[in-house]
Order: sequence, then C-alpha cells, then structure tokens
Amino acid sequence: VNCLFLDALCQKNKAERPPVWLMRQAGRYMASYRKIRAQHSFLEMCKNPELITEVTLLPIRQFGFDAAIVFSDILLIAEAMGFGLAFEDGKGPVLRAPPRFPEDVAQLRGKNIKEELSFVLEGITLLKKELTVPLIGFAGAPFTVACYMIEGEMTGKKNRELKKTKEWMFSAPEKFHQLLEIISDYTVEYLNAQIEHGVEAIQLFDSWAHVLGNRQFEQFSKPYIKRILDRLNKCPRILFAKGASCCYESLAELNLEAISLDWQSSLLDVRKRLSPKICLQGNLDPDILLASRNVVEEEAHALLAKMRHDPAFIFNLGHGILPETPEENVQALVECVKNFS
Amino acid sequence: VNCLFLDALCQKNKAERPPVWLMRQAGRYMASYRKIRAQHSFLEMCKNPELITEVTLLPIRQFGFDAAIVFSDILLIAEAMGFGLAFEDGKGPVLRAPPRFPEDVAQLRGKNIKEELSFVLEGITLLKKELTVPLIGFAGAPFTVACYMIEGEMTGKKNRELKKTKEWMFSAPEKFHQLLEIISDYTVEYLNAQIEHGVEAIQLFDSWAHVLGNRQFEQFSKPYIKRILDRLNKCPRILFAKGASCCYESLAELNLEAISLDWQSSLLDVRKRLSPKICLQGNLDPDILLASRNVVEEEAHALLAKMRHDPAFIFNLGHGILPETPEENVQALVECVKNFS
Repeated sequence: VNCLFLDALCQKNKAERPPVWLMRQAGRYMASYRKIRAQHSFLEMCKNPELITEVTLLPIRQFGFDAAIVFSDILLIAEAMGFGLAFEDGKGPVLRAPPRFPEDVAQLRGKNIKEELSFVLEGITLLKKELTVPLIGFAGAPFTVACYMIEGEMTGKKNRELKKTKEWMFSAPEKFHQLLEIISDYTVEYLNAQIEHGVEAIQLFDSWAHVLGNRQFEQFSKPYIKRILDRLNKCPRILFAKGASCCYESLAELNLEAISLDWQSSLLDVRKRLSPKICLQGNLDPDILLASRNVVEEEAHALLAKMRHDPAFIFNLGHGILPETPEENVQALVECVKNFS
Repeated sequence: VNCLFLDALCQKNKAERPPVWLMRQAGRYMASYRKIRAQHSFLEMCKNPELITEVTLLPIRQFGFDAAIVFSDILLIAEAMGFGLAFEDGKGPVLRAPPRFPEDVAQLRGKNIKEELSFVLEGITLLKKELTVPLIGFAGAPFTVACYMIEGEMTGKKNRELKKTKEWMFSAPEKFHQLLEIISDYTVEYLNAQIEHGVEAIQLFDSWAHVLGNRQFEQFSKPYIKRILDRLNKCPRILFAKGASCCYESLAELNLEAISLDWQSSLLDVRKRLSPKICLQGNLDPDILLASRNVVEEEAHALLAKMRHDPAFIFNLGHGILPETPEENVQALVECVKNFS
C-alpha cells in the first residue's frame, strides 16, 4: 500500500519525493476515458457504480498516481436536491431549478441524500476492493454549488462573473444564507457517508470563490466551509478555494489538514506565511501541460525544487487538468515527480 | 487645490477621510459621457485633445472625485506601434497585427511614440489648465499589452484564458521577451512624456496578470514592470496587478509608491503584511455598485472602517467601474467617503 499521500496530509512524508495526483485525473484527456464516454453519457457514468470504479481506476493504472479520486461531479448533490441536471457537449453542466425556486428555498429540504446518491457510495465500496492507493471523496463548497443553482450554467461571460448570484446575494442575503445552509447540511451528510464507505480523505472545491470580494467570501462562503469541516467525521480534509490566496492565513485556521492552491501563488511564499503544520497541495498551471515536454519537465522541476523535502506537500495542478492535455505530458510529469530526489 | 490624493501617495494623509477616485470613472455609466459618445467613436474621443479634456473632467465635475485620470486607453500604444486598433460595440478592443507579426517582432521598433500619441500629451496640457485635483497618467503593463497583441481580442473564453499568449510564451520565450522589452521601452518614453506634460502620478495596469502562474508572472511580467518603474522620471507610481494578491510582498519591493488591489484581498490583511510605507488603493468589488444604495453604503462603510486613519489609503474599486452602474450609486459612494469621520 502506497502511504505517501496520507503521510503528506499528516505532515510526515519522509520519502525523497512528494505524492502526486491531479484534479480531474480521470477525464477526457485520456483515450481510454473517451472510449467509455463514447458508449455512455457523462451522467450515466457518474451514476453507475461499476463505471465509477472503472473510470476512477483508469489514471491510477495508466500513470501510477499516488491517490485516486472518486469519479463524480460536484453538481450531483444539486440533482439530489431536486434540480434538473444535464451535461451538454461544449457547454458543461446545466441546472434547471425546480418550480418555485428561488422563492421557496425550504422546499429543497427533506431529501434522503444518501439514498439519492447511493451509486456514489456503492462505487466507493467497489473501489476499496481494487485500490492500492488512498481514495479521495469530494463535494463542492456550498457557495460554488449555489452559484450553479442560481446561474443555471456557466457558459456566458455574465454567468462566469456570477451576475445573478451576486444580485441575489445583495438583494436577498437571508434567502441566500438559507440556501447555503441547506446545501451545507446535505454536504455534511453526503461526505460523512463517503467517509463511512471508506474514502480516506475528502476535498472541498470552492471553484468560484475567486469572483467574490473578500468581505463577501467571509460572509457567504467561509462560514459554510467551516460548518462542513467542523461536522465531518474524522478524516483528513483538503480545501481548494480558487483565488483565495489572499486569505490563506485565515483559511489555515479552519478545521483542515491541507490547502490546495491555485496556480497564482508561490508555494514557497505560502509555506513561509503558514504554519508548517498545514499540508500544501498544488499548484502547477494546467496550461503548462499543453506545452512541450521540455517545458513540462522544467516547470515540474522548478516546483519540486522549491518544495524539496517539505514533509507536507502534495504535487498537483492549480486547477483541473484540461481535456486537450496530451497523455505523454501527463506521463512525463508523473515520471518527473517519481524520479525526483 | 485638493491634496488628499498626493498626500496619501506619500503616506501622509492626515485628513479625516481618504481620497477617492474610481478606475474608468469617465465612462459609459455616465449619461453625459454617452451623449458625447453618441457623436463620436471611442477612438475619436481618445485622439482629440479637447474631447480628452472634456471627458476627463465630466466625473470630476459631477461627483467631485479627488483625482482625475486622463481619458485614454492602454491599447493606443499598440496602435502607435503599428497594430490596427478598433473598438467594436459589445466586443471591446480588437487589435490587428501588422504583416510578419509575430515572426518579426523587431519591426515594431523605430516609432516616434511621443509623436504618435501627441494627442494624449496635448490633452494633458489642456487638462492642467482646468483641473483643481491631481491628474493621473497611465499605461498598460507590458504583459497585458502583449496579451492583447497576441490574442487580438478578449471576447472568447479561450482569449480570456490567454491560450495563444501562453502557447507563444512557452514555445518561443525569447521572442516573447523581445516583444515585452520593446513594449517596455516605448512605455517608459510614453509615461515620461506624460510626466513632462504634467501628470502628477502614474498608474500601470496589469489587468491580465491573474491568468499567469506565479513563476510565469515572475519571468514575463514583473521584470518589465520593474524595468519601467526604474526608468521613470520622478513621479509617484501606482501598480494595479489583478490577481497578484499572493505576491504583494514582492511587488512592494519595486520602485513604487502604491499598490492598487483587486477586490479579492482584505486591505487590512495586506496592510499587516506590507510596510506602512506603501500606499494601498482599492478595493471595492465593482459589482457592489450594481446593488441597492443601502448595500453600497454598508460596503463602503465597512471598507472605510477597516482603513480608518490609515494615512496611506486611497479609496477606489478593485477593477474598472461597470457601464451598467447607476449614477446615483456613484454619488452615494462618494458622499459616503466624503462624510466619513
């Protein structure tokens, strides 16, 4: 069993090299993934425990990553809460609000989230029988899930600027808080169920935090991240909050083991600012994997050299791997990390 | 003469309140601006010294800002360097590269930038006769100007992710450095001419820095910002680098008086991290000005309360004011700052 990942999470990786995994490592950049995807819709894949298992394992077998992450999507919880969910080609996820949303937010309560998302839990059970590396479970941070619920889709510039979300937030803050609270409570239930079924770490994704002003992040995102982290059963917790590099000190005070950094910050600077007790994960720019093999190796080496012998560092990207990434570059990246000493 | 702005820039504002101005304060959100714009294209307005003067003065007269900023655009320098420049409705700026660009970058040298942009300098001369508040000159940071040259326009998602720029940067770094150097040298000439004509402070805009990874920012943006700042004639210098909140410590070591912050960081946290000798400018989220008057006042008060009695704080937004901003909200914001004590 490969312990690098869990060792780094508890700040005691004594190996010559850090563990490596990539956000969205089981994805469209892999030919083997596209082959399965040609037979099934994305949602079918997410809802079938055997396919979850098969797809989760693809990158572990092909590239030898040091951790696996359950193949799933942060918006399945929205579907479980009563939203229509579709993944349209070239458009990404599209959420259709239930009738009387947003007027009636309380209607979203009362779902049996473990039953609605049982396929994920079954997938975890199957995966645990196959894996020799740790398994990471995950969920979206409440603010990010709420953004999708309110915007419906993230295709347009105005969507990506969260215009509707901010309008809601400023004009009906109580209702927005109510929505965030409901999402948080379901997320606690969902993540605790993932932990019960055997995931060995969890990661919360606040992928849209960067659009918020600092005061709004403190009011509308952080308290709900805290609410979740405080209520989780014992399990290492990683937080990815895009664009939050200005407030890592304050995030590091939360009940968590690791912070996953986007690509804007210098890991070494962040390490200097934070207690050595926090594990840092990240933060290669995913666009680097679109460049030549030389560039990939040079950039990976630069990052590795900076974090040399840091017992609490997990090599990863600053965001999800891009679908157009050449598989050879992923291979080169993993080799680079594994051969580092 | 109103000294608040210059006092804050040299860290000695002893007044009860900070100075206030807004990025893009002379713009489409003003009815009086739209009236002039209905008669002239944006480029005509930028190239006519009388119109530059008239438009620059509009927000000073209507709202009583404590500083004026020359009405212009960061891409006029690209046009002066041989690019075609157009502003298309709903599309923003569009640059058309000269023949043999990018193969032949050196062709961009040899322009008389002061002559090409003489209308700006004449506008400054006229403005100096009218103004009772300090006048700010500006230019784009070389990396940001280069992005527009390479992307051509920023309308698509791939443009805004700077896909072409990064491809160039990684595949032909020497040529990219050559381009950045040429832009830097013209920018020094241009800003020094603005200073000679009477601007009392300058601001560099690195509006696309947030898309760069940290190592790339250190390689491809910061050295050229430094090159410019080091070569400017004596004049207070402000740097706006979007998304650079992770590296304010390193930016504060540059040859500058002030850092203008985007809306993601907490000014108070940044103040704690930086020497009190750096002036901080910013950083209200421009979307807040789209909310109700109550929200505008509440958020402005929160920011003012945080920076209470800081002798080196300039109230501003974290990015340019949005065209859809109601004028009443700008009025309310300015009153809020002016009545603060």
